Amino acid sequence: MYEKKIKEVILDIQSGKLDTEHAVQALKDLPFQDLGYANIDHHREIRTGYPEVIYCEGKSTEHIVGIVKAMLEKDVNILATRVSEEVYEATKDLHDDIIYNKQARILIFRKEAFKVSEHKVLIATGGTSDIAVAEEAALTAEVLGTQVVRLYDVGVAGIHRLLSRREILDDCSVIIAVAGMEGALASVIGGLVDVPVIAVPTSVGYGSHFNGLASLLAMLNSCASGISVVNIDNGFGAGYNASSIIRQIERG
Amino acid sequence: MYEKKIKEVILDIQSGKLDTEHAVQALKDLPFQDLGYANIDHHREIRTGYPEVIYCEGKSTEHIVGIVKAMLEKDVNILATRVSEEVYEATKDLHDDIIYNKQARILIFRKEAFKVSEHKVLIATGGTSDIAVAEEAALTAEVLGTQVVRLYDVGVAGIHRLLSRREILDDCSVIIAVAGMEGALASVIGGLVDVPVIAVPTSVGYGSHFNGLASLLAMLNSCASGISVVNIDNGFGAGYNASSIIRQIERG
Amino acid sequence: MYEKKIKEVILDIQSGKLDTEHAVQALKDLPFQDLGYANIDHHREIRTGYPEVIYCEGKSTEHIVGIVKAMLEKDVNILATRVSEEVYEATKDLHDDIIYNKQARILIFRKEAFKVSEHKVLIATGGTSDIAVAEEAALTAEVLGTQVVRLYDVGVAGIHRLLSRREILDDCSVIIAVAGMEGALASVIGGLVDVPVIAVPTSVGYGSHFNGLASLLAMLNSCASGISVVNIDNGFGAGYNASSIIRQIERG
Amino acid sequence: MYEKKIKEVILDIQSGKLDTEHAVQALKDLPFQDLGYANIDHHREIRTGYPEVIYCEGKSTEHIVGIVKAMLEKDVNILATRVSEEVYEATKDLHDDIIYNKQARILIFRKEAFKVSEHKVLIATGGTSDIAVAEEAALTAEVLGTQVVRLYDVGVAGIHRLLSRREILDDCSVIIAVAGMEGALASVIGGLVDVPVIAVPTSVGYGSHFNGLASLLAMLNSCASGISVVNIDNGFGAGYNASSIIRQIERG
Amino acid sequence: MYEKKIKEVILDIQSGKLDTEHAVQALKDLPFQDLGYANIDHHREIRTGYPEVIYCEGKSTEHIVGIVKAMLEKDVNILATRVSEEVYEATKDLHDDIIYNKQARILIFRKEAFKVSEHKVLIATGGTSDIAVAEEAALTAEVLGTQVVRLYDVGVAGIHRLLSRREILDDCSVIIAVAGMEGALASVIGGLVDVPVIAVPTSVGYGSHFNGLASLLAMLNSCASGISVVNIDNGFGAGYNASSIIRQIERG
Amino acid sequence: MYEKKIKEVILDIQSGKLDTEHAVQALKDLPFQDLGYANIDHHREIRTGYPEVIYCEGKSTEHIVGIVKAMLEKDVNILATRVSEEVYEATKDLHDDIIYNKQARILIFRKEAFKVSEHKVLIATGGTSDIAVAEEAALTAEVLGTQVVRLYDVGVAGIHRLLSRREILDDCSVIIAVAGMEGALASVIGGLVDVPVIAVPTSVGYGSHFNGLASLLAMLNSCASGISVVNIDNGFGAGYNASSIIRQIERG
Amino acid sequence: MYEKKIKEVILDIQSGKLDTEHAVQALKDLPFQDLGYANIDHHREIRTGYPEVIYCEGKSTEHIVGIVKAMLEKDVNILATRVSEEVYEATKDLHDDIIYNKQARILIFRKEAFKVSEHKVLIATGGTSDIAVAEEAALTAEVLGTQVVRLYDVGVAGIHRLLSRREILDDCSVIIAVAGMEGALASVIGGLVDVPVIAVPTSVGYGSHFNGLASLLAMLNSCASGISVVNIDNGFGAGYNASSIIRQIERG
Amino acid sequence: MYEKKIKEVILDIQSGKLDTEHAVQALKDLPFQDLGYANIDHHREIRTGYPEVIYCEGKSTEHIVGIVKAMLEKDVNILATRVSEEVYEATKDLHDDIIYNKQARILIFRKEAFKVSEHKVLIATGGTSDIAVAEEAALTAEVLGTQVVRLYDVGVAGIHRLLSRREILDDCSVIIAVAGMEGALASVIGGLVDVPVIAVPTSVGYGSHFNGLASLLAMLNSCASGISVVNIDNGFGAGYNASSIIRQIERG
Repeated sequence: MYEKKIKEVILDIQSGKLDTEHAVQALKDLPFQDLGYANIDHHREIRTGYPEVIYCEGKSTEHIVGIVKAMLEKDVNILATRVSEEVYEATKDLHDDIIYNKQARILIFRKEAFKVSEHKVLIATGGTSDIAVAEEAALTAEVLGTQVVRLYDVGVAGIHRLLSRREILDDCSVIIAVAGMEGALASVIGGLVDVPVIAVPTSVGYGSHFNGLASLLAMLNSCASGISVVNIDNGFGAGYNASSIIRQIERG
Repeated sequence: MYEKKIKEVILDIQSGKLDTEHAVQALKDLPFQDLGYANIDHHREIRTGYPEVIYCEGKSTEHIVGIVKAMLEKDVNILATRVSEEVYEATKDLHDDIIYNKQARILIFRKEAFKVSEHKVLIATGGTSDIAVAEEAALTAEVLGTQVVRLYDVGVAGIHRLLSRREILDDCSVIIAVAGMEGALASVIGGLVDVPVIAVPTSVGYGSHFNGLASLLAMLNSCASGISVVNIDNGFGAGYNASSIIRQIERG
Repeated sequence: MYEKKIKEVILDIQSGKLDTEHAVQALKDLPFQDLGYANIDHHREIRTGYPEVIYCEGKSTEHIVGIVKAMLEKDVNILATRVSEEVYEATKDLHDDIIYNKQARILIFRKEAFKVSEHKVLIATGGTSDIAVAEEAALTAEVLGTQVVRLYDVGVAGIHRLLSRREILDDCSVIIAVAGMEGALASVIGGLVDVPVIAVPTSVGYGSHFNGLASLLAMLNSCASGISVVNIDNGFGAGYNASSIIRQIERG
Repeated sequence: MYEKKIKEVILDIQSGKLDTEHAVQALKDLPFQDLGYANIDHHREIRTGYPEVIYCEGKSTEHIVGIVKAMLEKDVNILATRVSEEVYEATKDLHDDIIYNKQARILIFRKEAFKVSEHKVLIATGGTSDIAVAEEAALTAEVLGTQVVRLYDVGVAGIHRLLSRREILDDCSVIIAVAGMEGALASVIGGLVDVPVIAVPTSVGYGSHFNGLASLLAMLNSCASGISVVNIDNGFGAGYNASSIIRQIERG
Repeated sequence: MYEKKIKEVILDIQSGKLDTEHAVQALKDLPFQDLGYANIDHHREIRTGYPEVIYCEGKSTEHIVGIVKAMLEKDVNILATRVSEEVYEATKDLHDDIIYNKQARILIFRKEAFKVSEHKVLIATGGTSDIAVAEEAALTAEVLGTQVVRLYDVGVAGIHRLLSRREILDDCSVIIAVAGMEGALASVIGGLVDVPVIAVPTSVGYGSHFNGLASLLAMLNSCASGISVVNIDNGFGAGYNASSIIRQIERG
Repeated sequence: MYEKKIKEVILDIQSGKLDTEHAVQALKDLPFQDLGYANIDHHREIRTGYPEVIYCEGKSTEHIVGIVKAMLEKDVNILATRVSEEVYEATKDLHDDIIYNKQARILIFRKEAFKVSEHKVLIATGGTSDIAVAEEAALTAEVLGTQVVRLYDVGVAGIHRLLSRREILDDCSVIIAVAGMEGALASVIGGLVDVPVIAVPTSVGYGSHFNGLASLLAMLNSCASGISVVNIDNGFGAGYNASSIIRQIERG
Repeated sequence: MYEKKIKEVILDIQSGKLDTEHAVQALKDLPFQDLGYANIDHHREIRTGYPEVIYCEGKSTEHIVGIVKAMLEKDVNILATRVSEEVYEATKDLHDDIIYNKQARILIFRKEAFKVSEHKVLIATGGTSDIAVAEEAALTAEVLGTQVVRLYDVGVAGIHRLLSRREILDDCSVIIAVAGMEGALASVIGGLVDVPVIAVPTSVGYGSHFNGLASLLAMLNSCASGISVVNIDNGFGAGYNASSIIRQIERG
Repeated sequence: MYEKKIKEVILDIQSGKLDTEHAVQALKDLPFQDLGYANIDHHREIRTGYPEVIYCEGKSTEHIVGIVKAMLEKDVNILATRVSEEVYEATKDLHDDIIYNKQARILIFRKEAFKVSEHKVLIATGGTSDIAVAEEAALTAEVLGTQVVRLYDVGVAGIHRLLSRREILDDCSVIIAVAGMEGALASVIGGLVDVPVIAVPTSVGYGSHFNGLASLLAMLNSCASGISVVNIDNGFGAGYNASSIIRQIERG
């Protein structure tokens, strides 16, 4: 179905039925590839500026391999998240350039070298245990061409660790604050800077932390203005969101 | 029943059946006054060092008046919390020395002037909206003979307001941190000082704050050590708890 | 305390102890005005680029009036949210230029005409009942100098209402999606555009909506990438967050 | 006890005490077979039109084998759900015609070939990870004689994948919408069609998804009319419900 | 914008660019009327077979009046739910044929007499307190042309009240079970019949009922197959859903 | 329908079709009176030994009056719970012997004087605020012929108040423990006695008490054996349950 | 410490300081055996009529063995619940008469043959999956000398399975209703009988069952009177509670 | 960065720019050691009086080893909590004096013998299963120089076990009450003593205990005054908090 639709659009352009502007619009909406168990959205890159991302949790290894193969054939960039080592083992021989980061559980295939944005995203964590989530954010942002600065283990229990790095905070365009426990890092950073802050609650905690609920609620209720929040442990979402802001900035 | 039991103890002491030590113990456990709807614990002051406190929420005005009358007759100190103006109106003529604080909803009757401890409790709030709860804590502590220092509206969204008062933090023996929203004040203070910190979550917030749940969970999950927590909006509990610590300090 | 600190900084600058760079830093951190019940953060505008905002819920009318007076004396812009009509009545005579929007419950005092950003924020709502929250976002953004486009009642139950306005979606730099019920608007918009999307769950719904919880969870779990979320009914936070992104874009 | 009751009914029919209509009614209510640990409802097929279904979660393998054996002896159709591979291993040799679908965890024994309804049920999923639940629905419906059309991975993050298949949506009598994450698929479909939509929330998601709660609440709060919801991951329930609707349609 | 689009479609039909089939499709998707605060979906009736319904909770009286006026001008049927008496007072003079049911809080305007379906929906309630919700369902169904049978106060605490009416249960094509408390009515009915059952949990209960949560969870977890559930107190949704099933049946 | 069925049973008895035993059984199951909005279960007294109870919350005053009238006509005992003063005003003139207890919100009509059981139920409360719920339990039990002993305000914060009354605890056959806050009263009593303990959590508390949830969970998780629990504030249920135990005891 | 206290009481009796009545009382309160990690309550049998029960979940095997040994030495009956097979292996050689039931996870040591009460407890389950919990209840009751009747798999989805056994329901003094899913069994039984009903919610279910929460809430909110509830899966508690009722009955 | 800052302070002291008092303050705030993945707060001991504690849950073994090594090099005391045996194996060879307690999952390195406070902390548990958490508290307190008294398995189901040890309760300055199930131990102790009580809810329980939630809520809602609460299973926090109180007492 996919190629037929592309052809129709092309014919319409050739016949003059579609002018340039509408042709782009038409291409934005249509195409995807039907694998039966998945509809891969190859033209997502045209529509939203980013390639489709494969979220691997809950998908069978067989399905993931099928999706990766289909994308490799179309020669698009690949970003897969929540990739278990088992899945990596099953995909690593599909192409020499597949890269896997175990801590962040991210798998990357890049057609060409990443571009690097001029504007920076700072990724800060409250503690050492939050680093896995922070790296998911960092790698996601880097794949999307965003320059990343890391500032780890600067939680509020020793607030001088953060305050002594004010110059780093002031030198970036977006901040991602990753924290478990009481998640106060986002509020403190939000009160110090005038750039957008994306808060990522993590599931680091125990007991009444309820697997991240405590951090999530704290961040949603921050007394500092200008903070928005993504799902618990959603490093990918924060990295993606930050990159879309950076891209708007670089577009001007 | 109450006076009979006291008499028995006295007889036992007179007869030598009870030595001094056991007589104190016996008096500690026994006495209360049965009003039918309430068993007033007059000797609580002997047992725990503090008079019984009347928690007025959910009690009928009629019952509260009866309890206050019974306590006035025994000539003990009275501390009543969550006192509505209606209840105050119904009790204010029972004795000239009854005092009412509307913001903290506290009613006090004191037989003699409060003593004032040498050691201080600092009560800090995140915002202006937390002051009612903070005042419940402050007045409770003061009734119990504790010296209180107030430091209001120093929340983490403008953390320099707190950091610029470090000398006040360092000059007290216990700190009560009262905060709604994300409740981060307790964590930041906990990381700066080496005294016990009692955190009071307040119901100040909306939406996913769930009437104080967000602050409560944040405080229970603080990454700063040495913090303990009382119920949402429980200024009384924090003031009482702080006073019991101060008393242990002054006892040495 | 406030003026004394400013003086110290000035003296340090005069004496050469502080060079320009450090003087700015010092001024960023210090100053606030202590009213006893509030520490007004006048220099917040220097530090974060925005004036302090007065969140009125839970504050006594008396305290709010005091804060507004203090700010008027300093001649700074004022933005107050969750302003009841009672509070407005108590403040409206303090200055001729005080403006009140009843639907959005926002009170504004502006020293000078707002600037208007070149880049636009689109604010979309799922239904008519979400408009009050959307207007809180819109007015907040406008006070902060951001150009706003409104697109109301375009929820997913009649998705052609949204799809037929694709050109409006494509013409803005940030989108705020305001929705109650199942909150699906954010996901659908997030799949159509390549700009940052800020989702605002509203409390519009009943039964198992649990006062906004259903919308909140849906938005946090969006299958569309690039979405971040603020608290339930937090139009202010979304407007502020969007404005901080716009500002970064205009700075370039 | 079971056979005795059947006999009594038969005697009553023979004696004329029961006319045809009441005899059917009597048979509808009575019979079941008591295994001690289970009361198998053999005549459920008469009463509700469907054979009894074995829900295997939490039952011991030994009990399940006993139930299957008893049903095979009565020569009725068997549909077992949530069947682990271990249970399948223990039952597969009981009869040659036992079929097992590992993905849907369903075990089937059919006395005769399925009939196939003229009217169709469309089963759509938001993503690839939802397919296991969708297949539980599909196989259940097919066992019950319903014609099924599958449309997988058409979630709202790429809504053109759904919109481009409008003709499939319009060609069926009932739609089952299976989705995890924010579960918006049900709302979007509900707004496009005029047939009953059964929404199945899945546990696909993480963090604040709370194992399906987010999808469940979203679907219950859909702004589209005409949607009803079954339990999280309850593919069986949706397939059964859809089939009972199809049957009413075919009955006319 | 609305009329312009209609014109375009018409021109396309006239010019032969659109054949009949595609013209219907085009009209299905496009038209709505933009009031600024609402986009009324007049052609929803073509697309889904039902007129747009006005959900009044949270909408201002002014907005509702505006929407009703716009719909009266277009001469379409009107169904408004959750209509307060205040709103009714404001709308009742707009047209002589506006009808209001106070118990069900429903407002109706019908262009012509309702048709009445041959197949019936049975609406049963557990108790007397559930009747308001049941009437919302009943009136919704009747407006949509569905024949309704009522069976109220037949809850499981006195199960003979239900069992003695088996003939009524067996005589309908869809059953709506409305119940608060433990919501067991749906399960008991589901075990007795072979037609689709739509369960409506109500907020009738107290304490650990949590405003309908107990009934909702019970119904979602019914051990009877073939039950689907709508939101707490959502009589409208159940009536609408039942009517869409009835319509499929009557279409055959 | 009601009288017809009674007649049928009688005819069957007369004709010898029903022997005594089966006639009782038949009468146990059949009869109720259909008011349209309510099916009054007049013979419930035969079936369960108690008259039907009217739970008034959520019922319209009109419906309640109708039910009371119908019951008065049948000359049965009446017990109505959650009766507002407004409802009492509307019913009090229906019969001279109607009694209303405002604190317990209970309305009673008794055909003859209550019998009083030999065995006693002790009803204990943690505090004075729990008395309204305790009285609902006490009056319910007394209406059902049970002897009640009251022991109020003996909560665990002053445990000597309870321990000094051991002889009262030991002199009863069932204990109802009514408590809000942390609900520990049930556990302490459960550890002291060997009779069944029915725990009633109350909504007395604030903040993280969540309207009774804290007490409910505590009581369900009691470390003392032999405790069972009813719904939050469900004094009626506890009184009823205790009475059914007492009745079994008196039957021997 | 334990023997010393016993001696003191004995001396007091010998000296006439304690009369018979007070001696019993004294023995009721005092004695326990301190193992350091456990205080075994050997005289609990005197005080509450039942031996102390060992709840094994969360205790180390080493501790459990120590407790069992200490109890064997005192020659008291032993009832241990939630006993893993590992724990059984470690204790089975301590005495020949130790019995273990794997399904109910119960370990029993009995000094003498159980007595069997004349009055019966009926234990009914909704499904086959609930039997493990039911057996915990049954064995607990039997150890405590109670006669038990089992009636399994009679859930409300096939209500005739229950109704056809009315004579069993009517022949017992207490009923324990064990059910997962929507837990409706308790309500239906409660409406049929006039004896106390103890409801045991089980964790049998999935998705929105939330590990037993759905059943628990349903049972707490039963519309049938006279039902009380124990913790999720707490077969032990129900068996114990039922036995304490039976004992009161047999005492008369 | 760390050493450079220390040098600056020293230079300032040498030059007289910093007097003694301010030098201490400066040293309090500055120093930490940046390992990239962790910022070790070596001077925390100066600032808060206690060494930094390593919370090991969620940290990789590699990171923990790195942190321990860095701390050993600085020759500070080490306290690590939630230490798995795997982590212990990886660190035990780093220094001969590393001690590991498996039950409490605590790892300790001490430069010198612990001091022992004159004032005592009593640690009481409700049951044997709570001992692991209690030991985490006890060892933490002991490492921090606090004298600990243990009183285990004295829960309220056998309250005489607690009451018979009144003299132990009266002989300490702070009490830590550790309890799962309904957590009533804290309330009973709180009513008996006049010292601060720190309550530790544990996750010991099942079903509606919700992994500690029941105990947590009970303790937060205690009717006894003077109780504060830490997170579920947070033995460390309680031990730390108690020690900070003891230290204030010993300072006088």
